[in-house]
Amino acid sequence: MTTYTFSKMTANLRRSEIRELLKLTRRPEIISFAGGLPDPSLFPYDEVAESAERAIRERGDLALQYSPTEGDPFLKEQLVKFMNSQGENVRPENLLIVSSSQQGLDLLSKVFIDPGSPIIVEMPSYVGSLQIFRFFSADFHGIRMDADGVIFEDLEREVKALCAEGRKPRFIYVIPDFQNPSGITMSMERHEKLLKLAHDHDLLIVEDAPYRELRYAGKMLPSLYSMDKENRVVCLKTFSKIFVPGFRIGWVLAPVEIIDKFVMAKQGTDLCTAAFNSITAAYYISMGHLNHLIERAKKLYAQKGKIMLDALEKYMPKDSDIWWSKPEGGMFLWVKLPEYMDAKELFMQAVEQNVAYVIGSAFHWDGSGKNTLRLNYSFPSIDQIDKGVQRLAEVVKKNLRAKVA
Amino acid sequence: MTTYTFSKMTANLRRSEIRELLKLTRRPEIISFAGGLPDPSLFPYDEVAESAERAIRERGDLALQYSPTEGDPFLKEQLVKFMNSQGENVRPENLLIVSSSQQGLDLLSKVFIDPGSPIIVEMPSYVGSLQIFRFFSADFHGIRMDADGVIFEDLEREVKALCAEGRKPRFIYVIPDFQNPSGITMSMERHEKLLKLAHDHDLLIVEDAPYRELRYAGKMLPSLYSMDKENRVVCLKTFSKIFVPGFRIGWVLAPVEIIDKFVMAKQGTDLCTAAFNSITAAYYISMGHLNHLIERAKKLYAQKGKIMLDALEKYMPKDSDIWWSKPEGGMFLWVKLPEYMDAKELFMQAVEQNVAYVIGSAFHWDGSGKNTLRLNYSFPSIDQIDKGVQRLAEVVKKNLRAKVA
Repeated sequence: MTTYTFSKMTANLRRSEIRELLKLTRRPEIISFAGGLPDPSLFPYDEVAESAERAIRERGDLALQYSPTEGDPFLKEQLVKFMNSQGENVRPENLLIVSSSQQGLDLLSKVFIDPGSPIIVEMPSYVGSLQIFRFFSADFHGIRMDADGVIFEDLEREVKALCAEGRKPRFIYVIPDFQNPSGITMSMERHEKLLKLAHDHDLLIVEDAPYRELRYAGKMLPSLYSMDKENRVVCLKTFSKIFVPGFRIGWVLAPVEIIDKFVMAKQGTDLCTAAFNSITAAYYISMGHLNHLIERAKKLYAQKGKIMLDALEKYMPKDSDIWWSKPEGGMFLWVKLPEYMDAKELFMQAVEQNVAYVIGSAFHWDGSGKNTLRLNYSFPSIDQIDKGVQRLAEVVKKNLRAKVA
Repeated sequence: MTTYTFSKMTANLRRSEIRELLKLTRRPEIISFAGGLPDPSLFPYDEVAESAERAIRERGDLALQYSPTEGDPFLKEQLVKFMNSQGENVRPENLLIVSSSQQGLDLLSKVFIDPGSPIIVEMPSYVGSLQIFRFFSADFHGIRMDADGVIFEDLEREVKALCAEGRKPRFIYVIPDFQNPSGITMSMERHEKLLKLAHDHDLLIVEDAPYRELRYAGKMLPSLYSMDKENRVVCLKTFSKIFVPGFRIGWVLAPVEIIDKFVMAKQGTDLCTAAFNSITAAYYISMGHLNHLIERAKKLYAQKGKIMLDALEKYMPKDSDIWWSKPEGGMFLWVKLPEYMDAKELFMQAVEQNVAYVIGSAFHWDGSGKNTLRLNYSFPSIDQIDKGVQRLAEVVKKNLRAKVA
């Protein structure tokens, strides 16, 4: 038989541990907080059907053809308007349409990561980012988070240490708004400090902002991208959480010099993003549906998030070593258990009790965070949230050790 | 201002010379043989609208959601049937849906190319492949072609030389059917010899087959993929030429072990291909539209191809150093001019005469082939083809040197 000689980078590919664990959660009686899917009751079937129909009838010659690598101009126009209505100040030349924001991460990796390049990530961070950064053999430097985002003193110390070694990080990767997985929002003070640190050390910041528009509590903070005056922020956006995942459309906001490299890299990556979805989405936005949908999503996720928080308050054992985040938006919430608990061991017990979550270590580049876990509240129903948290709390209770005074 | 430290691979990115030249061809009076677009009169607007409507109404919960990385099961089912009706013998586990066959090339590069890995390509070859292989810093070994495809003796010599040096090529990349750019088909004898060579040296073959179904003359040959009994062929397919480019859907046929690596690499690349387009395309195929459309396309391209061949015969100066391919399908035709002519210099003259093409050197990894050019006959109208070839022939005539007896 044939022997294949794979690239060295292929050794960085791993079967996703999350996927393997999720296979155990497919029984219908299991209440799953493990997914990361939007609530399908929000899917705007009629409006998408109408938009697709218009794309084919009114711009069919463009919708079925190749689009420019930079993105369909009609969609770019609609996105510039939308972004600017959200407090950005974007010009079309700063915007690149990508085939999912995961593609933005792939382009980012291609253009900025050499094997061994130091990069800084939050701990925890988005698993899809860790995956592609690892594939390109980045040298990870993780910074722990508290309730206000990445811990600034730790970040500053790490940046200074790396710069002193002549190993300036290629970028600092953060998810400031209701982070996936933690649900934590970076405070305004840390936004400012982060930009100042980047200024002082001439660093690039990557702001991943898929949930930003889904703020249902607290005060809207400016994006790092809008605060930046020095062309040092790349911002990744997507329709997956605020519209539908099934279109695989995202966009990148970045300085022109970076957009230019991304466009060249995208040519070899997929030539262009699907014109059919792009123009359908552009009609959808132009008819005012997106703003309306975001309002509906915020209301629903506010309600579901509150039910999860109430249930945690109600069912979880009172213990000073148990903590959970209080998200101001988005779809996820983070639970810290006492250090002696292993969320992976608990997972098996939880599945036996018909409830599932994602183990927190999957979101740590180094596999740490073993006593943490992520709960999703956007996908399960309201009834399921209360019942599922109750089951989870039972499992935690069973594993609790009596405190020695 | 901010200084960016780009990856080393970024230095391999180039502004596409083709794109820059194409910018000169946008005047409406120019007849362009430069594009690579399907004839838009083939776009099946009604059928796509109906399929999209069904995707949303009948499978909307799937069509707007994330799909499995392996691809939407309904589309996979339809593609297996379609492929097998075309003489393949594919099982679902050998098929991966990708977001354009260009993504297949990106995954191929990620999984098989280390910096400096030897690979073998045809001369000329598809420019999008050369671009991504170059990005991943492959060590190119180009083999020239004649009217029957890649010249086997040259290929064999190169393979033996590389193997003798202990530098086995990671793969041999070929486009056997009416190749883009040359329109040349690899003969049956060379199909067999290529597989034998791969067997003898334990090599992987990559068969890029975007045009295969568009055969309008000559005898259908089996694909390398279907001939292979040793799991040594990866085959890349796409909807772009046989259906519509605007969906950005392709698929890969490959041994399970390779599909497995591609799936893991795809997770970091874009998570999954758009379910909306996938399910729309699946309905389109399931209603029998694809086979019907391919029949229409073949008739149209047969007609257009014949008109271009007739025009070349009629207008081109009679000279033994001028040669063009006689495609049996697809969308392109290749012209070789006398060695002393430079297709790039002629391009400027041609544009002045309101006709455009792509310079052949763009399709050679080393920039050779300066006396060659590619003509597309799928996109221009029938009238334009005759008139454009006449203009082109005038330019060639003007540059012809009298032969010294």
